[in-house]
Amino acid sequence: METINRLESEVRGYVRSFPKVFSTGKANWLTAEDGTQYLDFFSGAGAINYGHNDDVMKKALLDYIESDGITHGLDMATDAKIRFLETFEDVIMKPRGMDYKIQFPGPTGTNAVEAALKIARKVKGRDRVLFFTNAYHGMTLGALAVTGNASKRAGAGVCLCHSSPVPFSGYFGPDRDTADDLRMLLENSSSGYEKPAAIIVETVQGEGGINVADFDWLKKIETLCRDHDMLLIVDDIQAGVGRTGPFFSFEPAGISPDIITVSKSLSGYGTPLAITMIKPEYDIWEPGEHNGTFRGFNHAFITAIAALEHYWKDDKLEKNVLRMSDRIKERLDGIISQTGFKAEVRGRGFFIGIDCEQHELADEIAAECFKHHLILETAGADDNVIKVMPPLISPDDDIEKGLDTLEQAIHTVLDKHGLLSNAA
Amino acid sequence: METINRLESEVRGYVRSFPKVFSTGKANWLTAEDGTQYLDFFSGAGAINYGHNDDVMKKALLDYIESDGITHGLDMATDAKIRFLETFEDVIMKPRGMDYKIQFPGPTGTNAVEAALKIARKVKGRDRVLFFTNAYHGMTLGALAVTGNASKRAGAGVCLCHSSPVPFSGYFGPDRDTADDLRMLLENSSSGYEKPAAIIVETVQGEGGINVADFDWLKKIETLCRDHDMLLIVDDIQAGVGRTGPFFSFEPAGISPDIITVSKSLSGYGTPLAITMIKPEYDIWEPGEHNGTFRGFNHAFITAIAALEHYWKDDKLEKNVLRMSDRIKERLDGIISQTGFKAEVRGRGFFIGIDCEQHELADEIAAECFKHHLILETAGADDNVIKVMPPLISPDDDIEKGLDTLEQAIHTVLDKHGLLSNAA
Amino acid sequence: METINRLESEVRGYVRSFPKVFSTGKANWLTAEDGTQYLDFFSGAGAINYGHNDDVMKKALLDYIESDGITHGLDMATDAKIRFLETFEDVIMKPRGMDYKIQFPGPTGTNAVEAALKIARKVKGRDRVLFFTNAYHGMTLGALAVTGNASKRAGAGVCLCHSSPVPFSGYFGPDRDTADDLRMLLENSSSGYEKPAAIIVETVQGEGGINVADFDWLKKIETLCRDHDMLLIVDDIQAGVGRTGPFFSFEPAGISPDIITVSKSLSGYGTPLAITMIKPEYDIWEPGEHNGTFRGFNHAFITAIAALEHYWKDDKLEKNVLRMSDRIKERLDGIISQTGFKAEVRGRGFFIGIDCEQHELADEIAAECFKHHLILETAGADDNVIKVMPPLISPDDDIEKGLDTLEQAIHTVLDKHGLLSNAA
Amino acid sequence: METINRLESEVRGYVRSFPKVFSTGKANWLTAEDGTQYLDFFSGAGAINYGHNDDVMKKALLDYIESDGITHGLDMATDAKIRFLETFEDVIMKPRGMDYKIQFPGPTGTNAVEAALKIARKVKGRDRVLFFTNAYHGMTLGALAVTGNASKRAGAGVCLCHSSPVPFSGYFGPDRDTADDLRMLLENSSSGYEKPAAIIVETVQGEGGINVADFDWLKKIETLCRDHDMLLIVDDIQAGVGRTGPFFSFEPAGISPDIITVSKSLSGYGTPLAITMIKPEYDIWEPGEHNGTFRGFNHAFITAIAALEHYWKDDKLEKNVLRMSDRIKERLDGIISQTGFKAEVRGRGFFIGIDCEQHELADEIAAECFKHHLILETAGADDNVIKVMPPLISPDDDIEKGLDTLEQAIHTVLDKHGLLSNAA
Repeated sequence: METINRLESEVRGYVRSFPKVFSTGKANWLTAEDGTQYLDFFSGAGAINYGHNDDVMKKALLDYIESDGITHGLDMATDAKIRFLETFEDVIMKPRGMDYKIQFPGPTGTNAVEAALKIARKVKGRDRVLFFTNAYHGMTLGALAVTGNASKRAGAGVCLCHSSPVPFSGYFGPDRDTADDLRMLLENSSSGYEKPAAIIVETVQGEGGINVADFDWLKKIETLCRDHDMLLIVDDIQAGVGRTGPFFSFEPAGISPDIITVSKSLSGYGTPLAITMIKPEYDIWEPGEHNGTFRGFNHAFITAIAALEHYWKDDKLEKNVLRMSDRIKERLDGIISQTGFKAEVRGRGFFIGIDCEQHELADEIAAECFKHHLILETAGADDNVIKVMPPLISPDDDIEKGLDTLEQAIHTVLDKHGLLSNAA
Repeated sequence: METINRLESEVRGYVRSFPKVFSTGKANWLTAEDGTQYLDFFSGAGAINYGHNDDVMKKALLDYIESDGITHGLDMATDAKIRFLETFEDVIMKPRGMDYKIQFPGPTGTNAVEAALKIARKVKGRDRVLFFTNAYHGMTLGALAVTGNASKRAGAGVCLCHSSPVPFSGYFGPDRDTADDLRMLLENSSSGYEKPAAIIVETVQGEGGINVADFDWLKKIETLCRDHDMLLIVDDIQAGVGRTGPFFSFEPAGISPDIITVSKSLSGYGTPLAITMIKPEYDIWEPGEHNGTFRGFNHAFITAIAALEHYWKDDKLEKNVLRMSDRIKERLDGIISQTGFKAEVRGRGFFIGIDCEQHELADEIAAECFKHHLILETAGADDNVIKVMPPLISPDDDIEKGLDTLEQAIHTVLDKHGLLSNAA
Repeated sequence: METINRLESEVRGYVRSFPKVFSTGKANWLTAEDGTQYLDFFSGAGAINYGHNDDVMKKALLDYIESDGITHGLDMATDAKIRFLETFEDVIMKPRGMDYKIQFPGPTGTNAVEAALKIARKVKGRDRVLFFTNAYHGMTLGALAVTGNASKRAGAGVCLCHSSPVPFSGYFGPDRDTADDLRMLLENSSSGYEKPAAIIVETVQGEGGINVADFDWLKKIETLCRDHDMLLIVDDIQAGVGRTGPFFSFEPAGISPDIITVSKSLSGYGTPLAITMIKPEYDIWEPGEHNGTFRGFNHAFITAIAALEHYWKDDKLEKNVLRMSDRIKERLDGIISQTGFKAEVRGRGFFIGIDCEQHELADEIAAECFKHHLILETAGADDNVIKVMPPLISPDDDIEKGLDTLEQAIHTVLDKHGLLSNAA
Repeated sequence: METINRLESEVRGYVRSFPKVFSTGKANWLTAEDGTQYLDFFSGAGAINYGHNDDVMKKALLDYIESDGITHGLDMATDAKIRFLETFEDVIMKPRGMDYKIQFPGPTGTNAVEAALKIARKVKGRDRVLFFTNAYHGMTLGALAVTGNASKRAGAGVCLCHSSPVPFSGYFGPDRDTADDLRMLLENSSSGYEKPAAIIVETVQGEGGINVADFDWLKKIETLCRDHDMLLIVDDIQAGVGRTGPFFSFEPAGISPDIITVSKSLSGYGTPLAITMIKPEYDIWEPGEHNGTFRGFNHAFITAIAALEHYWKDDKLEKNVLRMSDRIKERLDGIISQTGFKAEVRGRGFFIGIDCEQHELADEIAAECFKHHLILETAGADDNVIKVMPPLISPDDDIEKGLDTLEQAIHTVLDKHGLLSNAA
């Protein structure tokens, strides 16, 4: 750890929450260099939805490397890329009646968002994009301009223009429909909101604090886009690839985004991969207009193919996630009512948050969990939401075990602050 | 290839220049799915400096995967990351008397540039950054704002502000020193050039057409930065990691950049990795102020460690590159004078360009080479420069063989246009 | 008129609504070159609050010119300027307990707004400014960036950044307090609204359609500014100088703006003059940091002195305006209910609007009035509001006469469209 | 003066250089309230080219006011406006074969520049505008973005985008043609200079330090605009209306700007007036797309008509200015060579500067002149240039008298610093 402190930039973050050197990982467990085992309720912030070093993908990857398959190919054609495209079409798009062109915009989520914003602006010939309060879309300047967090925005060091925040689903409480408000602003030619090229939305805001968009609200936003000639971009980087149950988080809302960004768990194994999915009629890129070095990391294609074939040819994974999601929420609600913890549980699938009325308790509880070898992180504007994000493949028993640890941590922290209800 | 055309976005580029499906790679050779072998004078645009699937790195990577080493770790501490940092310190920084903090800004070059620009602006509290004519630094909006190419800039769809272009070394010919001009502009408080936070420079502009900065000019730019309280950022993403001979391209110029970006061949194997090196006094990031999913791709650490240990503990690679560089330039000059080809050869190390007076000939010659199984690309504002960039580990014979093919292609193309001199 | 069409730019506007060549003006009457007299319910869009060519001011101006008093003085000291400052202090500021430094930012309203925004940003060291839906603050790029009208914004030809629109008082109806909403957004560090330097507000939006801010809402906005370290800028260019009754429109709301812009009727005679009033603690300008040619047009000082002394040493004018304001609104409400005209009457003082549910009727009615020699204009996002703005000195009889004409015009237009209620 | 210090903003500038209260003005003389007379070599920074309170204009203005002519008319048609347009056409445009539409963009120079930039961007559909080192075009954000002065730019408090500075005529000395450099940058699609909508230029930079553009250079800039589909905007606000001799400063260069801004002395009497002249084919404004309160200040039309008719129906004024210009430069060169003053004299017409090698001497000399009742100001990036700008109607004797005072001041200041050459 001394090496990290000496040589790595002060910008490092997670290592401060999880101050341990990790060596190996398997499924929903991580092992530190001293042999301690940690239960993972974090999933690499959504990049390890299938757990660590899944054996099926591992075998495929080892075989590929062994055979000297192309590793790095920019955007040249390779066997691996072609197989990835075909698998994605067959396993994901076709069964869902989806028709999109796939762009490889660079290996990480923020690259996918940058490409999405560029093509949306090009298609509509307008520069403004609307984003939502508490949104998080990435750290490069285009993506950062549609991200809500003030300190991260300040990190830009330049004015982040061409984007305007608008209140997310339920922002002003359940009685007000922010989609209706937005319509009123867009239909007023003197509102000061210039006609946008697009709206970018997460169906469940991850970094923003597990804020769940209402399905009706999402439909209204889609209709607004149609009525006002804007593209609808769904950023499914954290919520996608099964995190909420279905492959795409927006499926149950019945909307059809014009552009979709996918990354994190897309490759399945933690190998960097991102795609920007574009409806064919909007794929008006000039050749090479957006490029980059690691757009075709073939190892990631190989693991992605294995992941798609293994987990998405049937609905077992999705069903299991939805089943256990109810169980997790039920237990969390129980813990809250028993302990008198002032908090709200919300989320979809394995994308669940505990929003703590006393904000600082969230980080304390997470730290207490880590002390007892459970890894989970906090999110929200004030780090006020405990994120419960186990790998989708976590055995039921391990989830119960993790919830036991979390329950105990809540008890301990509430007790320490004299907040434990008498009943508990 | 039908799959690519059907499913991949129109933005795809290299696949149009090299319309072939590739399956495997070894050292300086690529093999297509039909078994044809292609000689590589392209090196993945600088990402494959050690050739494809280097055996030493391959073994290290296979062992790591086999042992279930952590794959994805965000910015948590892992054995692999610590070993990478230590190796980079021991093999690269210490022998060169360098002291930098290492930031992992995301897995690809443009992420490293974004982080470099952010921290420079934060350190100086100013938003402007100067960049050079024909510069290329990446495609996300922060990096794109310091990139010269008009059509790529237009792709932003928004105004790219907070940056100003200034003429590169030798831009107006050898008799004018653009560093002196820049000093005059910066010392005039009414020049309209607001005081910049930093200057970002490539010592050899790759995408810009293999434009080589004079070492004296680089020294002057460094002095200008010191005199005017600006940070000097060297983007060594394409020119670094031995491409010009030494590990860092700026070493022979004797300058000491405040921030250095490195990516592409840093990981050695085509595995996505990028770092932003920051002088410790400027590492004033807040924890988490810049983040991202694939900042700690441990496979890339593993291959990078192997690459650094195998190739940079002595100066054999560097010396060999410099030796063969002279040979390549000598042969190219010979070809030009023999054929009467109106072109200029320039470059450093294995980063050599042939600037064609008749711009369109460059692409024709490259296409002719590809027809004869030699892969090379063109660069420059009008794709007017043929890039000669073999992997650094290419055997002499293969380089000669590639130059034979290139010579023949030049003959063919000149002849076709009736441009071949009588002597040839 | 042929000359105008031939030589003046297509940008001309009012001449299209009032297609007549005017020669002379006196009080609330204009005379065309053919001798026709027009009753003025327009007041030069608020620049002629005291009517045309007021005799007291006229005499002062003639004497000054006759005596070769300095006409143009940039920002040099002149007798006239000193007397203006003293009069403004004695007649306006002292009786109201106000303490402000006066800046002469250029001769017209938009210059005053530009200066206000500059100094607010300088004081707070932040670049964002909040403005309101339907706001109008001027046409130069700084002022235009805080103006709501989409087509005027588009006229900028560049991205108007550093400003964000928020809903004005009552924007979503009487049941929702947009000041509370704004507080919620500003207190959320991830809302995407970067901390602003200032809020700029009109107490009654003129060009926006005579939208009247609630006094409680204005107090809340002021409190929000105090709580969030923002400056409160009141743009009183159109609503000030008695238009709503009191000299400053915000007086009855009991707020104390940090910066106030005044222009239009400040000089009283139509002579170009604008001031930016700045609380002394915020007057941190460097000498000459903002300048301009016509900042000290001494003719305007002379007429302003006469206007202030004649009209504001007692409260007769204010009281009379408030008295007749009630009368005007009463008559307009009567006309509406009698005719069954679907419209809403609102406003303060002689700043009254008739908001027409069928937008296009507003311009028709205004045109019909002009045909009968009554001048009034329309405003609002869709030109849907008929503005009733007689000079403050209009005799009661003339106002009744104008309202007769307006009543008749409403009848005529409604009848033409078959919209007249049976009762009428 | 106490009133000024107490009540006027710290931003005041000229009053600090000329700390005296002025009461009346006549021709080229100003009288302070204590009766002291000051000789004017300043001309209100170019707004008083015909001297103070010219009797011909004065009479016309008094008559107009006496007759209750319309004072303020927004952009309604008035007798005065029509007569102004006709006179401007007959006296100025027709004899010069010029065909322009006239826009009244607001009463001061910066408004005219804002309108010029807006329409240029609209015509070309591009947002970038090129301006020159040391340019000065005004203080509102659009105009400020094309102004060079760093401290004034900083006053914006926001990023000034959409504009790029390029070196002015002779910026790098007489041996380098900056128009050729600019062509090279514009013809390189990777230069980083996005295709601009327009170039804005002063033929003689006033605030920038009396930098005189070469006529050949101006022609080249015009050709560059034609070749690269950009509009040429000449800002003739300070250099126009006879300041350099001819009515427009660009006449002897033989160029035909697409857009011309005129203000300052256009009205002749110090009455606020500005116009933006637009070639008819580019007058594509929508009605009302740019507006403002004091666009039609009829007093200014009246004085402008008198000025045009009195001074521009023949070439007497122009010839006289050119004759005396040579005399002034001759005397100044003489003073310099006699005293050994390290300075350069340059300029056109009565727009002459003395560029002092020791920058701080300029302000000292100006202050010494003021002590001896001669008013002149300094300009340039470091206030290093003494501006010699007498009213165009100054009698020869008064000019000689002013030069005597200036000569003495130079002697005194040089002597004080021990810089006087032995010969002097």
